[in-house]
Amino acid sequence: MAHRTAPEPPALVPAAAPEGAPAPGAVFDWLDETAELRARAGLTRALRSRPADDPVIDLAGNDYLGLTRHPAVTRAAADAALRWGGGATGSRLVTGTTALHTELEGELAEFCGVEAALVFSSGYTANLAALTALTDPDTLIVSDAYNHASLIDGCRLARGEVHRAPHDDPDAVRAALAGRTHRRALVVTDSVFSVDGNAARLLELSAAVRAHGAALLVDDAHGLGVLGPGGSGALAAAGLAGEPDTVATVTLSKSLGAQGGAVLGPHRVIRHLVETARTFIFDTGLAPAAAGAALGALRLLRAEPHRAERAREVARSLADRLTAAGLRASTPDAAVVSVRAPGPEAAVAWAADCRRAGLAVGCFRPPSVPDGVSRLRLTARGDLTDAQIADAVRTIAALAPAAAHTA
Amino acid sequence: MAHRTAPEPPALVPAAAPEGAPAPGAVFDWLDETAELRARAGLTRALRSRPADDPVIDLAGNDYLGLTRHPAVTRAAADAALRWGGGATGSRLVTGTTALHTELEGELAEFCGVEAALVFSSGYTANLAALTALTDPDTLIVSDAYNHASLIDGCRLARGEVHRAPHDDPDAVRAALAGRTHRRALVVTDSVFSVDGNAARLLELSAAVRAHGAALLVDDAHGLGVLGPGGSGALAAAGLAGEPDTVATVTLSKSLGAQGGAVLGPHRVIRHLVETARTFIFDTGLAPAAAGAALGALRLLRAEPHRAERAREVARSLADRLTAAGLRASTPDAAVVSVRAPGPEAAVAWAADCRRAGLAVGCFRPPSVPDGVSRLRLTARGDLTDAQIADAVRTIAALAPAAAHTA
Repeated sequence: MAHRTAPEPPALVPAAAPEGAPAPGAVFDWLDETAELRARAGLTRALRSRPADDPVIDLAGNDYLGLTRHPAVTRAAADAALRWGGGATGSRLVTGTTALHTELEGELAEFCGVEAALVFSSGYTANLAALTALTDPDTLIVSDAYNHASLIDGCRLARGEVHRAPHDDPDAVRAALAGRTHRRALVVTDSVFSVDGNAARLLELSAAVRAHGAALLVDDAHGLGVLGPGGSGALAAAGLAGEPDTVATVTLSKSLGAQGGAVLGPHRVIRHLVETARTFIFDTGLAPAAAGAALGALRLLRAEPHRAERAREVARSLADRLTAAGLRASTPDAAVVSVRAPGPEAAVAWAADCRRAGLAVGCFRPPSVPDGVSRLRLTARGDLTDAQIADAVRTIAALAPAAAHTA
Repeated sequence: MAHRTAPEPPALVPAAAPEGAPAPGAVFDWLDETAELRARAGLTRALRSRPADDPVIDLAGNDYLGLTRHPAVTRAAADAALRWGGGATGSRLVTGTTALHTELEGELAEFCGVEAALVFSSGYTANLAALTALTDPDTLIVSDAYNHASLIDGCRLARGEVHRAPHDDPDAVRAALAGRTHRRALVVTDSVFSVDGNAARLLELSAAVRAHGAALLVDDAHGLGVLGPGGSGALAAAGLAGEPDTVATVTLSKSLGAQGGAVLGPHRVIRHLVETARTFIFDTGLAPAAAGAALGALRLLRAEPHRAERAREVARSLADRLTAAGLRASTPDAAVVSVRAPGPEAAVAWAADCRRAGLAVGCFRPPSVPDGVSRLRLTARGDLTDAQIADAVRTIAALAPAAAHTA
């Protein structure tokens, strides 16, 4: 290969702002103004960079089964990178589908009891794909008011009409479907809502869509690996896996310790996504290391199915102990437990105090909480010991603001 | 840790469709109907799974510098997975920011000559973030008609009004800005358009935004690693890196051989994205292996800056030879060369013939081509030898449909 170094062109000079015009940077002054408003409301957010050997006990992430650092998972990720490369090199339809992607999709579909699976670079893009590709302008989309941001953005990108249904209200969903004038309808819900960890009533929603010729889309991000036989997900738990009118999305970045997302459903749905979903067609394929890590975690879970039940058990134990300590903990349907805080500043201070005591907990504040109530959010990692659970609850209770007991 | 296996609940039975209602699966019959329409128009797409030891010469992917399988890059990916885990465990603001992410962001910003960088799980989500967070309902967004799908989706998600400007027409952009009634305006463009590989006139666009108090957003997915001093990107090439009214998005999945994307710009812009961008806040952080691979590739490129110039040289050589062979090749401004085909079926057959001859080339058809013209799309990988280039052109020319010479 011949190398030559071409002379670089002379430095160019960008245009000066015209006489009397504001300085170019002034165009972003409004960003500082909104930052000031957030600061005054106690809603500033800042990134915290963690070290590889962080000694803190993590109840904040979504590593529900504690597999992200499991040697079998990290080894599978490393082997995939060494064998396949640092990236997928292109979009899935061009060069970005490796045999590893196909293997992962096959095993994921089999595990979850569906015909087919399609892997995306994130759960976010999987949700955007499902919502935009499975709807058309003559579709009514009925969306639970507490759905995840990626589902809400998917609704906004979709061409149909969106009806925001009250949270966890199958009767309202049924009424919206019955009253529609649209040719098609899609009901979309989280299986487990990410803030409080409560589950959607999937059987009732399924009956509603079936009574009205609609389809059901379930985001099982917080269900896969935790709910259903051996962690096979919320649809399997509800007996709905493989139903011809039901589609699920999942993430590879929570229970499966990797990155990425997937859509699960009938072959015809997956083929349609391959051919039409913009976030599939126009995005680079998932990196081989992430596909490898997810496949490694999936195989581990199939070999050790008790891991799913243990995550649920840890959640129940956390919630029971927090309640016994006088705090207002949610009743967990999966592996998420929330604790109400008296306000956003109190929640931030409480979480910061926990961190100083060696315990990382999530802190959810507006606008990330649909009801405006600030909370601590705890992840019931399946690899926590009973002693760690007891310690964590002691720390949280000891550092609770007085008003937390009645928040 | 105590394990107990709870008895699984009895299998549930989903509701039957009511008497007289269509079978549940019928709700997706329309997907088959649209598939049939695509098939008749020659627009079927299917996934092809490639093996790890694929002997084909790849001119189809976006691995512009050939770094995806470079040992330094795959080793960096593997080491990151082993050290940090298979995934980031949570969103960037909760647990998903590691010291590795921070390191990558710092080096990327320095390399590109901007104040700060923020890494996303894909270039797609980076574009959605920039467009939604840097606009408000009182913003006019002026978007080049040939912009990438992720920019178009970002425009649709944004709250401002979108004006689609004719392709590569700074005068039209200027007129749209001059005639606006909105308080703010954002001009958005690809730096290098992905289909033909032609470059936007960034200096003229910058002068236009500056004359009208607007901001400029440039998607440099196809410029990073190829354009500018040592591959530092299209903004650096135009002398616009670090300007206070200019923001860039880049991808880590093309020249940097990994996965992910980033937004580059002033500190205040990056802070604003951290605090408000939904695809940042509500998405799991980029997997450590991808951050590691991108960092490895970036360091390699800084140590060996000739790699960028070589990619441009390969592109010019490919285009010159294709033109000399009588084909209608685009004039490359970066590392993408396209060749016009007489129609979608002819393009598909041409690409398939090339593949059988050991050469992978991209095939772009409607709706992925804004002007409706089907093309082969060739990536000028910087690690191709002159002999490989000559061979590739011979293959493409020998297999060209007769009508390709006047397509």
